Amino acid sequence: MSLYATRQAALGKILAEDGLSAYLAHHPVSVSYLTGYDENPGERFFALALHPTAPMHLICPALSVNQAQRAGITSLDALKDGDNPEPVVRALAERAGWRGRIAVDDEMPAALLLKLQAMLPEITFVSGSTSLAKLMRAKDEAELAALTKAGEIADQTFEAIKGELKIGMTELEIARRLGELMAERGGVPTFGIVGISAGGAEPHHHNGDAALSQGDILLMDFGCTYGGYFSDITRMVSIGEPSDPEADKVYDVVYRAHMAARALIKPGVTAGELDAAAREVIEQAGYGELFSHRTGHGVGRKIHEDPYIMPGSSEPLFVGDCFSIEPGIYLAGRFGVRIENLVTATPEGHRSFNVDPAPTLERVSL
Amino acid sequence: MSLYATRQAALGKILAEDGLSAYLAHHPVSVSYLTGYDENPGERFFALALHPTAPMHLICPALSVNQAQRAGITSLDALKDGDNPEPVVRALAERAGWRGRIAVDDEMPAALLLKLQAMLPEITFVSGSTSLAKLMRAKDEAELAALTKAGEIADQTFEAIKGELKIGMTELEIARRLGELMAERGGVPTFGIVGISAGGAEPHHHNGDAALSQGDILLMDFGCTYGGYFSDITRMVSIGEPSDPEADKVYDVVYRAHMAARALIKPGVTAGELDAAAREVIEQAGYGELFSHRTGHGVGRKIHEDPYIMPGSSEPLFVGDCFSIEPGIYLAGRFGVRIENLVTATPEGHRSFNVDPAPTLERVSL
Repeated sequence: MSLYATRQAALGKILAEDGLSAYLAHHPVSVSYLTGYDENPGERFFALALHPTAPMHLICPALSVNQAQRAGITSLDALKDGDNPEPVVRALAERAGWRGRIAVDDEMPAALLLKLQAMLPEITFVSGSTSLAKLMRAKDEAELAALTKAGEIADQTFEAIKGELKIGMTELEIARRLGELMAERGGVPTFGIVGISAGGAEPHHHNGDAALSQGDILLMDFGCTYGGYFSDITRMVSIGEPSDPEADKVYDVVYRAHMAARALIKPGVTAGELDAAAREVIEQAGYGELFSHRTGHGVGRKIHEDPYIMPGSSEPLFVGDCFSIEPGIYLAGRFGVRIENLVTATPEGHRSFNVDPAPTLERVSL
Repeated sequence: MSLYATRQAALGKILAEDGLSAYLAHHPVSVSYLTGYDENPGERFFALALHPTAPMHLICPALSVNQAQRAGITSLDALKDGDNPEPVVRALAERAGWRGRIAVDDEMPAALLLKLQAMLPEITFVSGSTSLAKLMRAKDEAELAALTKAGEIADQTFEAIKGELKIGMTELEIARRLGELMAERGGVPTFGIVGISAGGAEPHHHNGDAALSQGDILLMDFGCTYGGYFSDITRMVSIGEPSDPEADKVYDVVYRAHMAARALIKPGVTAGELDAAAREVIEQAGYGELFSHRTGHGVGRKIHEDPYIMPGSSEPLFVGDCFSIEPGIYLAGRFGVRIENLVTATPEGHRSFNVDPAPTLERVSL
């Protein structure tokens, strides 16, 4: 059985177990994961329907038919722009036995979900991530190899950028250079948050014209895809001795929080327990209120996916789960420290896709 | 009143007219259009609520609070990862008088809409694009200036790329060069579909390693943003004399369809009438079945937005509407022709953001 047929069959089995009569995929990642067909349907009506036993079926725009067929999707209805999708949806619902609960991609646009709800008032639509994640979380060898390579590119890029930093370089310039360094190593650059001192105190900082000075604390959170799979790393350096006297202490706390969570990773441990392990270190050091986000997120073809390593999660980890460990402490207006590796859970514990972070805040002399 | 306060007040008035007790924005474009606050909330719980009379309020992740406040959003609730959003949603619903129908961004993720529906079973959620579009479609002078500049960059890039084409250049290489040419002119490259002969017969072609030969028919559909606003242009050239004897004829039909739709543009004409004007030319030439998509789409901060120029649309055009006119004919396995300009409706008719396309299929000698 081909890779995609195997995945489709596995999802069918999960749907039966979860009491779902269909799964409607819309997001390009779900669709390509399940079929190999790569398309971004945008605002057009588009749904790939999978079922416990009935055949897979695609409803897609007419302009996509050739590409869908070339990807091996033979059972499909094409909608021209302006066509009312209701007749083909109703016919499929009847043919495939839609009833009770149907799961949809979490990212399905509200406009499409509202249309489906109006067409099928007898159906209860539910979030599909839990069911699909049972399949997508268990990364296979090829997926792990891509994540490993993406992680190596991130590591090499961090080593390379340290040799290129200069006094006066701006956040935007550093981010552009990170992208180029990842591209030179075969990655497709996807993001780069560069926060110089106060900028680093905003977890989702937007890069700007702030420029490097002596004593700055530099946060770099960046990644690329390789073979469609993400890297995501956060590293810290100080430009010479840090001008903020608390920087070394905060780095030490975040480093210990990072390693405390890492030490706990093994199958069966819950995501909430990992989060608590990191959070406890930070709380005990008195910085609990300044750790304003979860400890990590799953990663694969999406930069954020299940499992989410967050407070209260009772979700157990499985072999093949891939996720970030990235505790942080943010001192508004001064600096932030976040330390992030991507890891995968193994039967014995975990393997990191990145080399271990430095145990103390690294100095770069410029 | 500031630009954003004016937009918020205008949306409030539209909500009252449309019988909506709230509008919940989630998409980065809606949120930044209405407030200037630029954030991509991803999978986290995030909703910016606007009301007919009650104050605007934001529910956002704790990690975004500083940036939201800096953008002037003072009424907000922050959710830490793992927090249950229901109490703050219910409190807001009570305070702001949510009842009856509430509109949401069309792009709101299904997972978020399903959560809101579960929390507020007494509310009917509806697609918000019609209401928000009443505001966003009427582009102001600054928006038109950005679209004009983005269009100029696209025009200049087409002129420049013609001088750089070489026999053996691949689709991927041409697309990369289009991106660089747009960036050199101040645009942020966002997409580039390059279809060589058979590749051009797929409207959403994925660029590959197909390489230019003598006689190829080359389709280039590309764009960038300038100041956040999109350009989107499609141009055709033949490498020397076209090897397919039907190419000149097909180009002529598409050109006449393009100009027929353009000639009709003025306030009050419906989107469906524009589509019909282009479609009629193509149908009369016997290619109706090969025009597999709508005639155009609105454009602004989104590459696709209202109004959609499509069959059956009774939506009238207004002064300030900006949209594409892009009929096409696709001969599977041979070549495709699409001719696309962006235009804006003016009191007298329309103004194009691009120079007019060549009336006959242009030859490039390599």
